[in-house]
Amino acid sequence: MRIDIISVAPNLLDSPFNHSIIKRAQNKNLVQIFLHDLRDYGLGNYKQIDDTQFGGGAGMVLMIAPIANCIDKLKSERKYDEIIYMTPDAKTLNQSTANNLSLKENILILTGHYKGIDQRIRDKYITKEISIGDYVLTGGELAAAVLVDAVIRLIPGVIGDEQSALTDSYQDNLLSPPVYTRPAEFEGMKVPEILLTGNFPKIEDWRQEQAYKRTKEIRPDLLENE
Amino acid sequence: MRIDIISVAPNLLDSPFNHSIIKRAQNKNLVQIFLHDLRDYGLGNYKQIDDTQFGGGAGMVLMIAPIANCIDKLKSERKYDEIIYMTPDAKTLNQSTANNLSLKENILILTGHYKGIDQRIRDKYITKEISIGDYVLTGGELAAAVLVDAVIRLIPGVIGDEQSALTDSYQDNLLSPPVYTRPAEFEGMKVPEILLTGNFPKIEDWRQEQAYKRTKEIRPDLLENE
Repeated sequence: MRIDIISVAPNLLDSPFNHSIIKRAQNKNLVQIFLHDLRDYGLGNYKQIDDTQFGGGAGMVLMIAPIANCIDKLKSERKYDEIIYMTPDAKTLNQSTANNLSLKENILILTGHYKGIDQRIRDKYITKEISIGDYVLTGGELAAAVLVDAVIRLIPGVIGDEQSALTDSYQDNLLSPPVYTRPAEFEGMKVPEILLTGNFPKIEDWRQEQAYKRTKEIRPDLLENE
Repeated sequence: MRIDIISVAPNLLDSPFNHSIIKRAQNKNLVQIFLHDLRDYGLGNYKQIDDTQFGGGAGMVLMIAPIANCIDKLKSERKYDEIIYMTPDAKTLNQSTANNLSLKENILILTGHYKGIDQRIRDKYITKEISIGDYVLTGGELAAAVLVDAVIRLIPGVIGDEQSALTDSYQDNLLSPPVYTRPAEFEGMKVPEILLTGNFPKIEDWRQEQAYKRTKEIRPDLLENE
């Protein structure tokens, strides 16, 4: 998979993409990530990329031309399965969207900043708008990092057994059951006895029960969606 | 505000915390962020921090003692308003939680990794569990970065007018209306005429209408929660 990201602050993404799983995925050549600095496509001597809003109001808006020029250049080089805009006013990312995107070849991600981007870019170029949640961030860079992490770890070969994606929360619409490791007792706090019995079918039942109980308590909405 | 973050991969957070708004907030001394490497609290010569699950199953679990030792040390130095664990099996972050946390003095954030942390840590130390959305990430580091960004930008003085937090999506349960900037026409695509009239009360009406329309179309659930 190839992922291109257009940003006004690409350096913000240096460390998330150079550590842990995302780095390993790139080293294994399972994914290639390219960052594009919108400023390189800025207009005039000052490399202008933003301007005030039509109709007044606080907040700078990213201009059409720099973004259009950057996207046009990338599109002339390859075909993109999706051109995604990260923005809080969109449908929210979920595990099923992540699963779906993990099957694509080429993805282009545009991250907003300041007050957002000129609506006409969204109308003309964007094939999918994604929000990572009902809250506002300084820019779309962290949202892009979250999307990339959620997607890349689902590509076969990226994570080993130690990550065990299949038993994660959300893959079966239930939250994960509680997990425990050594020691069996710590300052008076004991591991549930069932986990020490070695009776694996019963342990599996207990985990399902705990997962259901936890989901019902914390996120009953997940059960309603079934 | 002081934010302490405990992580097995603190370097992953270097660039998000050294750019843009989060850096500016630190430079202005409005927020102090301290990263703690859980490995420094690891056990024995190998600085062990994780172990296999009781009861079997894929995935390593972060052990109690290293985390307990790190939290105990930090708690002995100051009082924390919240000790937060970032995990997908928790209530989802929203703008109101971010607003609320932006008023705190000292926050401690624990990020999970691998299969999660020993449940007994959650039972004993954690005062608030937060998920950033219904999807699974490699670790809690990006989730912590998202939380910190969402919270810090709400602290008075952190962002200037160009960021204009008050008119963002979610602050009034509606998505933002579309925004436009110069030029008024680009490759045949025109800005809505109302925005060029200078009639600000009418522009405000149009924006409210657009915000409502967009919310109804993309996120009708936000309107139901009113």
